[in-house]
Amino acid sequence: MAGNVQDVIMCLGDSLTQKGWSEGGLIQRLSEAYIRKLDVLNRGFGGYQTDWAIQVLEQIFAKQHEQHHAPKVQLLTIWYGANDAAVDGDSQHVPVNRFKSNLKQMIDMIRSPASSWYSPDTRIVLITPPPVNTDMWNNHTRDFDRTREYAEAVKEVAQETQLPVLDTWTALYDAAGRTMGGCSNFLTDGLHLNSAGYEIIYGLLINAIAEHYPEIHCDKLQNVFIPWDQVLSGDPRITLQKRNALVNR
Amino acid sequence: MAGNVQDVIMCLGDSLTQKGWSEGGLIQRLSEAYIRKLDVLNRGFGGYQTDWAIQVLEQIFAKQHEQHHAPKVQLLTIWYGANDAAVDGDSQHVPVNRFKSNLKQMIDMIRSPASSWYSPDTRIVLITPPPVNTDMWNNHTRDFDRTREYAEAVKEVAQETQLPVLDTWTALYDAAGRTMGGCSNFLTDGLHLNSAGYEIIYGLLINAIAEHYPEIHCDKLQNVFIPWDQVLSGDPRITLQKRNALVNR
Repeated sequence: MAGNVQDVIMCLGDSLTQKGWSEGGLIQRLSEAYIRKLDVLNRGFGGYQTDWAIQVLEQIFAKQHEQHHAPKVQLLTIWYGANDAAVDGDSQHVPVNRFKSNLKQMIDMIRSPASSWYSPDTRIVLITPPPVNTDMWNNHTRDFDRTREYAEAVKEVAQETQLPVLDTWTALYDAAGRTMGGCSNFLTDGLHLNSAGYEIIYGLLINAIAEHYPEIHCDKLQNVFIPWDQVLSGDPRITLQKRNALVNR
Repeated sequence: MAGNVQDVIMCLGDSLTQKGWSEGGLIQRLSEAYIRKLDVLNRGFGGYQTDWAIQVLEQIFAKQHEQHHAPKVQLLTIWYGANDAAVDGDSQHVPVNRFKSNLKQMIDMIRSPASSWYSPDTRIVLITPPPVNTDMWNNHTRDFDRTREYAEAVKEVAQETQLPVLDTWTALYDAAGRTMGGCSNFLTDGLHLNSAGYEIIYGLLINAIAEHYPEIHCDKLQNVFIPWDQVLSGDPRITLQKRNALVNR
């Protein structure tokens, strides 16, 4: 059984998160940056939207009475909208007002002292959906302007809740020369991201951490177990005690 | 705090494991294959050898009385030798007989009912060090034949303990046309693996799982949370209960 050795970054989302283990994906990049410091838990569920995400979050986030046995979530990323923005009548569609209230409900689960899942030490970053290229996507379930509307909705929630947000929609659209066609440089199929798309989003995330939560920037943390060339050969046991990644040397 | 939602694969080792988060690395490939089924914990510590690994394992593997609160380790990979095989007098060097007894001690920690870390449900796979290319490596701390000796030692331990072993030394040397120079196709610096090297080792691991532990092959497991197109729109809560990845539909 795995002991709770490292605190974690939990990435909650849909397929854009799930596919983040791919080469050059967001989670792959993040895991490499935080190696030996924080574990990264990929909690991306392809196809899911926020109605379903709430019920998942209730099961994957430890309740208060379980938390002293569970790895501390130092950072939670919440990245939805790509499926909520499916067109009316699609089973994945969530109307934009309910999408916003769902996001706020998830945030309240973590931040409200009255919540069973209250975790005051957990920092939160919201992420907007990126732009879609409907010429590339193989069905008619997505709409360019609709997805932009959901990206705006995430930014509104971020403002109302005073949380950092990664505006991936604008960052990728700008990098694409502000044309839908240009977005193909960052997408595999019109909806999902390639390595170049993830690279931009990873950069936004690291910058947001540096700005809003500098104490958990990867460069500010120490390895939980000491670098090998600092192990004392005379008495290695003393130097090989696990440490808190957040306590700097 | 992160609830214990998914069981885990724990990869214990040195820099060859630590660097497995890189694009095309062993851990990246494994994480992608087991997405939504098992979490992969990278417990690679660059520069470490087996003397130090024992003391790390004591701290990162849950003791019996902690195990009901900890994620179950369905698979443990143990991959050492690359540093133990450093030349005599180097601080990383561990004599081959002690290397073997260290490996056996780690295995006993998990398999012996008398051990505080006894975990009868944890499957173990041993991994040999790959060949080195001393012309590429930037110092004289490694020796081609010495590393082969440590690879043989891992295979002997596997035989004595009746555990599966990935003979990465032979697999890469064969793929290199059985020349040290040819090994450069699979190494970045003479000691560490590139994506092509990791690809071979990933293949060995998946094959070993299929042969020895088929019940945890990625294709035999189910998603902990149901695929989105099976969520019942009428009553999503029923279908969104987390499941055991090992219980097939």
